[in-house]
Amino acid sequence: MAPKKMILIVCDGLSDRPVKELGMKTPLQAARKPAMDALARNGVSGTMDVIGPGIVPGSDTAHLALFGYDPRKVYTGRGPIEAVGVGLEMRKGDVAFRCNFATVDRSMKVTDRRAGRIRTGTDALAKAISGIELEGGVAAMFKEGSEHRGALVLRGEGLDHRVSDVDPHREAKILESRPLVPGAAKTAKALNEYVRKSHAILSKHAVNEDRVRNHLPPANIVLPRGAGTINELEPMGERFGITCAGVAGVSLVRGICRMVGMDVPDISGATGGTDTDYIAKAKATLSLLETHDFVFVNVKAGDIAGHDGDFRLKMRVVESIDMMLEMILKDLHEDVVVALTCDHSTPVSVKEHSADPVPVAIGGGGTRIDGVKEFDEISAAAGALGRMRGMDLMPTILGIADRAKKFGA
Amino acid sequence: MAPKKMILIVCDGLSDRPVKELGMKTPLQAARKPAMDALARNGVSGTMDVIGPGIVPGSDTAHLALFGYDPRKVYTGRGPIEAVGVGLEMRKGDVAFRCNFATVDRSMKVTDRRAGRIRTGTDALAKAISGIELEGGVAAMFKEGSEHRGALVLRGEGLDHRVSDVDPHREAKILESRPLVPGAAKTAKALNEYVRKSHAILSKHAVNEDRVRNHLPPANIVLPRGAGTINELEPMGERFGITCAGVAGVSLVRGICRMVGMDVPDISGATGGTDTDYIAKAKATLSLLETHDFVFVNVKAGDIAGHDGDFRLKMRVVESIDMMLEMILKDLHEDVVVALTCDHSTPVSVKEHSADPVPVAIGGGGTRIDGVKEFDEISAAAGALGRMRGMDLMPTILGIADRAKKFGA
Repeated sequence: MAPKKMILIVCDGLSDRPVKELGMKTPLQAARKPAMDALARNGVSGTMDVIGPGIVPGSDTAHLALFGYDPRKVYTGRGPIEAVGVGLEMRKGDVAFRCNFATVDRSMKVTDRRAGRIRTGTDALAKAISGIELEGGVAAMFKEGSEHRGALVLRGEGLDHRVSDVDPHREAKILESRPLVPGAAKTAKALNEYVRKSHAILSKHAVNEDRVRNHLPPANIVLPRGAGTINELEPMGERFGITCAGVAGVSLVRGICRMVGMDVPDISGATGGTDTDYIAKAKATLSLLETHDFVFVNVKAGDIAGHDGDFRLKMRVVESIDMMLEMILKDLHEDVVVALTCDHSTPVSVKEHSADPVPVAIGGGGTRIDGVKEFDEISAAAGALGRMRGMDLMPTILGIADRAKKFGA
Repeated sequence: MAPKKMILIVCDGLSDRPVKELGMKTPLQAARKPAMDALARNGVSGTMDVIGPGIVPGSDTAHLALFGYDPRKVYTGRGPIEAVGVGLEMRKGDVAFRCNFATVDRSMKVTDRRAGRIRTGTDALAKAISGIELEGGVAAMFKEGSEHRGALVLRGEGLDHRVSDVDPHREAKILESRPLVPGAAKTAKALNEYVRKSHAILSKHAVNEDRVRNHLPPANIVLPRGAGTINELEPMGERFGITCAGVAGVSLVRGICRMVGMDVPDISGATGGTDTDYIAKAKATLSLLETHDFVFVNVKAGDIAGHDGDFRLKMRVVESIDMMLEMILKDLHEDVVVALTCDHSTPVSVKEHSADPVPVAIGGGGTRIDGVKEFDEISAAAGALGRMRGMDLMPTILGIADRAKKFGA
């Protein structure tokens, strides 16, 4: 049998706990979702500890696990993922940081950690503080992200990511980065030098002079945190012998897709918000499937509803994703393997990620059919997949798609 | 959401196999247990391999796993657990042994391994043979346990627990302890010296002179076995960021609770037998929950009924534990997470521990609710927790209690 094509749809944070107002049902149990239920009914279901029982996954570590990588071995902080997400190139040995544009007073005390949630002009500011040469042959590249966010990459000989944050994480004097291991002294020194030099440039920048005139807090400093380095990841395509593409709006997830070597096209209207264009995502998925063996789709909106504690919004998100899934399934050849799951639970009662297992359903491609008829946290637990781990998802999908390698004779 | 409090109730050896006289039901299936069933009905269930499939847990290794420690890494023999259980202090580097008071004849042949199951006077005997100084600066501390049992701790420089037993485990000449690795020669020598010296003291002790007059076998020797040392265990409280207390009557379990850093108060009436005061245990649990984040409760009686092969007694134990659970649940805030399980199965048909998985039910604290309506070995297997491992229980409870740490962003 010819190897089959594969789609993996990850509903970010959609998995939940019982909600009193819904008669102790979860939003997934309470919402109308005929396409999700059809997938479950015509395939196998299960529950999944994305990283492990009792471990609360971040979106970054969760996606690494879902793509088949062990986040405990691969993950060295969020900096590199943000950097790749905003489009900075990262090479082996580089050290990357997440940054905020912020406002400091003359004593270097942070008076606004988000520079008044600055929305415009950060591209010009970023350009002005990117490409700075530092002592010891270190180069600093900076790129803006959404709103007040950005990322910094340091490149040079002998750098080490084990340095402390400059960001004080509250309205206080900025911190000097310190080496957390003896070998990281050069990196901490370069980082402190970068913050000083960029501060000097930002303070006099026209964008900030305008802001001050308009009584807005100037984005006169960047606050690096979350230092990390990239461990060499064997690209997903090489590991599994497939061509891979990712459909995602949010930069963190886009960064991970790039790190594992997926093609990640820009999709107009895919915002990473609750206003994302579900139809555009469905169309992009179907179109990428013509040129790729494996298409990954992330929908962030469920996580946002969870963080907001808004079960009504979450139910609407379920219904929107269901519509997207229906569009995808309608036009699909029956031989395509479709997996539907979440990267973690974000219960509306918790307003944060939780360690609760997530539901999984896999259909199409001639896979087995168990007795599960609905896609939700409880129904899935009765499925033939049992309780699985996130790292086993890709091998399972590849197995059903007849792309797994034989071990032995 | 605020982190929740947690209770873990471990029904020692309660899990079983089908009993012919009960129409092939297990004692848990046959007994009336409305509180246990209510917990299952309002929460999630599963089955658990406490250590691993096909591994018969001891009560000591099982509890270590249930508390989140890997017994394969932590466990170095039962000696230290007994020693801590009877109240001897253990420091790093100490070597501890379980001991029997026994009877030997003049040729040092054991004629009664339990000295006629001696019940009184062992405290005086223990005092007489504790605090003995041995060659090489080794000190020996001894304390009696229940009936003929006791524990010995050797303290000094350069000791090693890898020595063979003095106890011949049958009616035969006592053994010379031998080093099992070259570095353990000093320990074996000290142990043999201790057995000789204590024998000389015990032989002339008034308690034994009385016994001989009354035609009872004298407790004229101690037979050390099960040498072990304490690995430094990171206290549960520090690992998980919680305050912990344990309610247990039996010294082995109390010892493990102390080893992992729990507060273990003495509870009047909590005997560790089938006559234990269930109401006192329930009250102690509720009272400790006011001052601690996590309260562990062990009820030993089911294991005793299993070892005795007495299914009727086991059913009565189920019903007594159910009454205890009802008392606890009645007064509990709905936000408290309650987990109910066993440390191992002790089937009445086997009269020994078995490798059969045990049932688990977790309710309260807004956890998910699956379709399981009863707490027993078979019903639990259909639950949303699936089949889990003992070491994953604490992380799972902490996850539901919103106390798990996020890995990633």
